[in-house]
Amino acid sequence: MNAELITIGDELLIGQTVDTNGSWIGEQLNLLGIKVTQISSIRDDREHIISSLNVALNRSDLVILTGGLGPTNDDITKTTLCEFFESQLVLNKQVLQKIETYFKSRGLKMLKVNSDQAMLPNNCETLRNDRGTACGMWFKKNGVDFISLPGVPYEMKGIFLEEILPKLKTQYLTSNVVNKTIKTQGIGESFLAEIIKDWETELVSSGLKLAYLPSPGIVKLRITGFGNNENELAKKIDGFINQLKSLIPNYIFGYEKDRLEEVVGELLKRSGSSLSLAESCTGGNIAHLITAISGSSAYYKGSVVAYSNEIKEQLLNVSPNLIKNNGAVSKEVVEQMAIGVKNAFNTDYAIATSGIAGPSGGTKQKPVGTVWIAVANKENVISKKFSLGNNRERNILISSLSALNMLRLMLLN
Amino acid sequence: MNAELITIGDELLIGQTVDTNGSWIGEQLNLLGIKVTQISSIRDDREHIISSLNVALNRSDLVILTGGLGPTNDDITKTTLCEFFESQLVLNKQVLQKIETYFKSRGLKMLKVNSDQAMLPNNCETLRNDRGTACGMWFKKNGVDFISLPGVPYEMKGIFLEEILPKLKTQYLTSNVVNKTIKTQGIGESFLAEIIKDWETELVSSGLKLAYLPSPGIVKLRITGFGNNENELAKKIDGFINQLKSLIPNYIFGYEKDRLEEVVGELLKRSGSSLSLAESCTGGNIAHLITAISGSSAYYKGSVVAYSNEIKEQLLNVSPNLIKNNGAVSKEVVEQMAIGVKNAFNTDYAIATSGIAGPSGGTKQKPVGTVWIAVANKENVISKKFSLGNNRERNILISSLSALNMLRLMLLN
Repeated sequence: MNAELITIGDELLIGQTVDTNGSWIGEQLNLLGIKVTQISSIRDDREHIISSLNVALNRSDLVILTGGLGPTNDDITKTTLCEFFESQLVLNKQVLQKIETYFKSRGLKMLKVNSDQAMLPNNCETLRNDRGTACGMWFKKNGVDFISLPGVPYEMKGIFLEEILPKLKTQYLTSNVVNKTIKTQGIGESFLAEIIKDWETELVSSGLKLAYLPSPGIVKLRITGFGNNENELAKKIDGFINQLKSLIPNYIFGYEKDRLEEVVGELLKRSGSSLSLAESCTGGNIAHLITAISGSSAYYKGSVVAYSNEIKEQLLNVSPNLIKNNGAVSKEVVEQMAIGVKNAFNTDYAIATSGIAGPSGGTKQKPVGTVWIAVANKENVISKKFSLGNNRERNILISSLSALNMLRLMLLN
Repeated sequence: MNAELITIGDELLIGQTVDTNGSWIGEQLNLLGIKVTQISSIRDDREHIISSLNVALNRSDLVILTGGLGPTNDDITKTTLCEFFESQLVLNKQVLQKIETYFKSRGLKMLKVNSDQAMLPNNCETLRNDRGTACGMWFKKNGVDFISLPGVPYEMKGIFLEEILPKLKTQYLTSNVVNKTIKTQGIGESFLAEIIKDWETELVSSGLKLAYLPSPGIVKLRITGFGNNENELAKKIDGFINQLKSLIPNYIFGYEKDRLEEVVGELLKRSGSSLSLAESCTGGNIAHLITAISGSSAYYKGSVVAYSNEIKEQLLNVSPNLIKNNGAVSKEVVEQMAIGVKNAFNTDYAIATSGIAGPSGGTKQKPVGTVWIAVANKENVISKKFSLGNNRERNILISSLSALNMLRLMLLN
């Protein structure tokens, strides 16, 4: 069972856009135990698309294409597929209606190029797109499945998860694959590997697989097992996860698709508590992470992003002397910021950050990457210093995640 | 003159690593006018590597491979290349010495797998790697150039820029290519296409190419021209860009790698103005975008993220009656939020947002996706209503970009 992916678009070949669709679909198929042998990025070019389809037809069982389904002239995937599969374009009234509704609900005028997206091949299965106007299409030729999806990642992922994944599961799965992901914050990959070394050896010798998936601030561990009995596999993996919990209790914040900001939100909701933030170096990113979660208004009241010292003094009640004597990036100031915002917003919990995100602005005593984070509740304020690197984006992200994990631990204790 | 790229590594096919090497090399070659027709990501698999090399041999003039040159067992690219090019591995003493020095300077013990990296094919040109232990290799077969590079991006880029780029320039450059990218905010792809239809027709019939590159809230237009005289080409493209400016003056915010938050920051810096934000539905994302730019503390003072009505009243001085009579998502309230934060933070400009980001929380009168945005300066406050979709992440992003563009237009007028 071999799959291959073809991502279409000139922008992928000239370095304007990095192809993330191939990687994302690759992961989804891998989790199902379907082997992806090749990801080809090719141009919006009729001949090249057709020759790639022919190659795929002769060596793969499943071919997924993305891109080139938009309404503009450079989008030629649909007409090229019609040629390859000898299709006629016919009007799909249901799809036309959906496109009309889509434009009406947004108060937008519909153009001919938009309604043309309801013209679809007569010999494919149409895949609903609830996020845009280009449908997915599922063709079959010589026993090979060909699926064409729009290139916009958000639309592509929606169609994949809702329309394709359930069908692939029933159609392709022979042996079962069970994947479980454990998510950690606050420990680097090599330190983690050192701590869980013996556990890992035992896991691997029991026939399971372990992958380390590091990203800034977070290391995911994925355990994979193949076998006939899904329940048994899951139970075996859960046993290893329970052992892991006792090895690294403070670092594990969640599983699977859990996001740290979501886990923290759940803890706040469950305890009926409220949260406010005073962000300096993280510049609104913690607020952004928290409010990305739907329903966060139940526990999150608001923030002050205090980029200037004036604001720290006026809105957060930090004394000018405290800043003068200790500097804005200090234990004293960040703790006062947390207490100040908690009082001003009248919340149960508060987070504050102050640091030098970089790449410039460091001193010998406080180099770029120095970050102080405080969390406060009604009784306590706890603060911690972090020494990060020179990369601004990374420093903001890691500080945000570290702050959320500090709050999580405070909520649990 | 066709080039193709082959990136090798299991991690690329299972979603563990997004292939950024292909995109980066694609951009470099494109800038030289070398057309990249395909980027293939394939597994560390002998047969698949050889069949990919055979395909490339028959259709391309230049083939660049990355990955699989490391010292571990799963790195099989070098031995597979030896098979394909019928090479013998011989010890390269110079390279061995470099590897020994590399290990000595880091105080590391050298293993056999490390010294084996000095065993190199006898029929290729060796390409220096000053950042690691795996050399690049340049083979020739049937007039086709094959270049193999390590997969670590930092090593690959070093070898490419230092060893390959100069040779490609002298060896390959015949015609020039010029790319220019125009970035727009505030108009959808199909509306844009409708407005610039005649301009596009003229551009295409003059021999240039146009591509639409949409992402949430932003549509990029890329004009490409091939020809002998680079200056003439650039002048011709600039002529079209000038025409475009007069067609869509308010939508174009920048060119090439410009980011909207950076453009707005430059305008603020140039006019010596300061900015504060009152964010409700965007939840800190505008602050996050602005503070992602290094040096933003020169113009950005801070924000209030006012998620609850209390905070809108207490910190932004919005009257409770205004909220009661109009709702928090209204022209009246968002304008008062902008004025309130501008006064509280004593800034020259302010942005405020209030809306229903979704996916829930909508009403019949104010469905999910209803967003009010205001921008204020010392004399004026301007507000605008947006009707977006159901996706929370998208609504937050599009609202943030729309707000920044409203501020940009206010700064220009």
